[in-house]
Amino acid sequence: MTSSRIATLRWDGRCLQLIDQRVLPMQERYVACARADDVVAAIRDMVVRGAPAIGCAAAYGVALEAIHLARVAPAQLHAELESALERLASSRPTAVNLAWALQRMRERWTALSGHEPKAIAHGLLDEAHAIVEEDIAANRRMGALGAALIADGAQILTHCNAGALATAGHGTALGVIRSAIEAGKTLRVFADETRPFLQGARLTAWELSQDGIDVTLIADVAAGHLISRGEVNVVIVGADRIVANGDTANKIGTYTLAVLARRHGIPFYVAAPVSTIDPALPSGDRIPIEERTPDEVTGFREHRWAPTGVAVRNPAFDVTPAELISAIVTERGVVAPVNELGIRRLLGG
Amino acid sequence: MTSSRIATLRWDGRCLQLIDQRVLPMQERYVACARADDVVAAIRDMVVRGAPAIGCAAAYGVALEAIHLARVAPAQLHAELESALERLASSRPTAVNLAWALQRMRERWTALSGHEPKAIAHGLLDEAHAIVEEDIAANRRMGALGAALIADGAQILTHCNAGALATAGHGTALGVIRSAIEAGKTLRVFADETRPFLQGARLTAWELSQDGIDVTLIADVAAGHLISRGEVNVVIVGADRIVANGDTANKIGTYTLAVLARRHGIPFYVAAPVSTIDPALPSGDRIPIEERTPDEVTGFREHRWAPTGVAVRNPAFDVTPAELISAIVTERGVVAPVNELGIRRLLGG
Repeated sequence: MTSSRIATLRWDGRCLQLIDQRVLPMQERYVACARADDVVAAIRDMVVRGAPAIGCAAAYGVALEAIHLARVAPAQLHAELESALERLASSRPTAVNLAWALQRMRERWTALSGHEPKAIAHGLLDEAHAIVEEDIAANRRMGALGAALIADGAQILTHCNAGALATAGHGTALGVIRSAIEAGKTLRVFADETRPFLQGARLTAWELSQDGIDVTLIADVAAGHLISRGEVNVVIVGADRIVANGDTANKIGTYTLAVLARRHGIPFYVAAPVSTIDPALPSGDRIPIEERTPDEVTGFREHRWAPTGVAVRNPAFDVTPAELISAIVTERGVVAPVNELGIRRLLGG
Repeated sequence: MTSSRIATLRWDGRCLQLIDQRVLPMQERYVACARADDVVAAIRDMVVRGAPAIGCAAAYGVALEAIHLARVAPAQLHAELESALERLASSRPTAVNLAWALQRMRERWTALSGHEPKAIAHGLLDEAHAIVEEDIAANRRMGALGAALIADGAQILTHCNAGALATAGHGTALGVIRSAIEAGKTLRVFADETRPFLQGARLTAWELSQDGIDVTLIADVAAGHLISRGEVNVVIVGADRIVANGDTANKIGTYTLAVLARRHGIPFYVAAPVSTIDPALPSGDRIPIEERTPDEVTGFREHRWAPTGVAVRNPAFDVTPAELISAIVTERGVVAPVNELGIRRLLGG
């Protein structure tokens, strides 16, 4: 029941197939990526989104480029692959799983130095497959650890989509929900619609419905009301970057939920793989916050409703300070309280 | 510059003309109301919205029905008008200005008892005109009092539309902004888009742009980020009902802004006419919260984006406790601190 049938990304033997998250749930269509720049465009345009899924897609982007170069321009493989890595790295700025996956691909590449271009390409494709398999396994472990924090009968609010569609499968925040249900708990989930890109309305509501999970859609503005009336008693979200002191960047609107959870004394959990942690940044104010196009706010897709030419601010992420986070659930363990020591211990430092 | 050219409602000599707020700013069209039930439908369907504007429209609804009945069925005037008052009263449940305006119409009607149906109709139309004129005058006084609270250079966040379009003119929260600008202050306004009906994106952004006021549109989820980064340093909103202890119902999402303002130590102001105060209710938990159709959340107008059949909660208002409100600005004075004593003193009790 709770093993989602949704394939966020799929290797078809020649191309990376990405489910097009811009058109879900109205259409289920796939976008084929044959080169690194196809993946760069897919990440930038949000065909694929969700920090872990972006990392997986970028890994395939490197492998695809290596395969292409091994066939048509083996002499330029080194220089061209280096350039592709850079373009992939700059496709979106906030999530750190992207940089983590590219670093892992680079390490595999280094380990293969001196090999034939075809062997390098083969090795890089293997590495991308491994990143995907490990992501699913990490989500399963995270789910099991997180499920222990969720009481039977919990009324859970989640924001954006931290589900199968944001990862290689099972999900982070939604993975915890799926695992809690697998463990026999009865849960009710509220999904924030998550303007402006509507990941909650389009993706979370859809993927939970597909799995038969009790989900209720709300406008983002309704979260405070439901929390204040006791209709929500736990909040769980994913993450795009967790820094050394535990401050966490996630989809815009997350910070507000953490403030509301604190005011009403309900737990606020973050679920994310260790690859989301960026120990190089000391605190959240150093995380780059992507500002996206005004078009996302002045309407949705081809539909416009704001007055033409109005000024817009469209930050895509915000930062929740560690002190507002009850626990961070990772595949290596649960960090609580959330602080620098907790993060350092988790990383084995 | 700051005297808005927008006519929210207009008496054309025969009908009440309401600007259709469902289609602004894409279309500027008027809906003509010739009978009370036309006004009931216009209120229920949100052709007209905003607590003071609803009160004004309902007053014309009574007058229109009296005019009609005086012409075609003078013998039934009493019974039919009573029935029309009831239908108007139940057109929307949360805002109290509606009940206030209807009570005023009823008092005028009582004062006219014994008169000819035509004289009653004439008197009721006069009363509706008076309510409109007094609303504009109240907004002007409220604006002047509120402007004193706004510093030059303030970066103001507002929610929903508490502007000329929510009133007979000038606005409540936006009236304070207009008056502060008239007083020579330079302000920057951020408008929450205000899902699901998008009053901020469609109405506030439009009416402020029309008046040349510096306005920036944001998704509701971005408010916390901007407040936390110091880009917003005052929040001002309207109200649909203020009860005896100062608890205030307003558009869903308002409570969240008050919680964020408190966390970051910035003032949170409510601007509303005295007719918004309902001293009969002791506290905010007694205010009926209207739940509107799921269609508003699963898409916008004819556009759908959520999965078909998904469960939805769509509360249209929330309640901000008095302790989170820095001041309530009315045409009779500013209440601060906001508590039962302050409200009682304002009402002269």
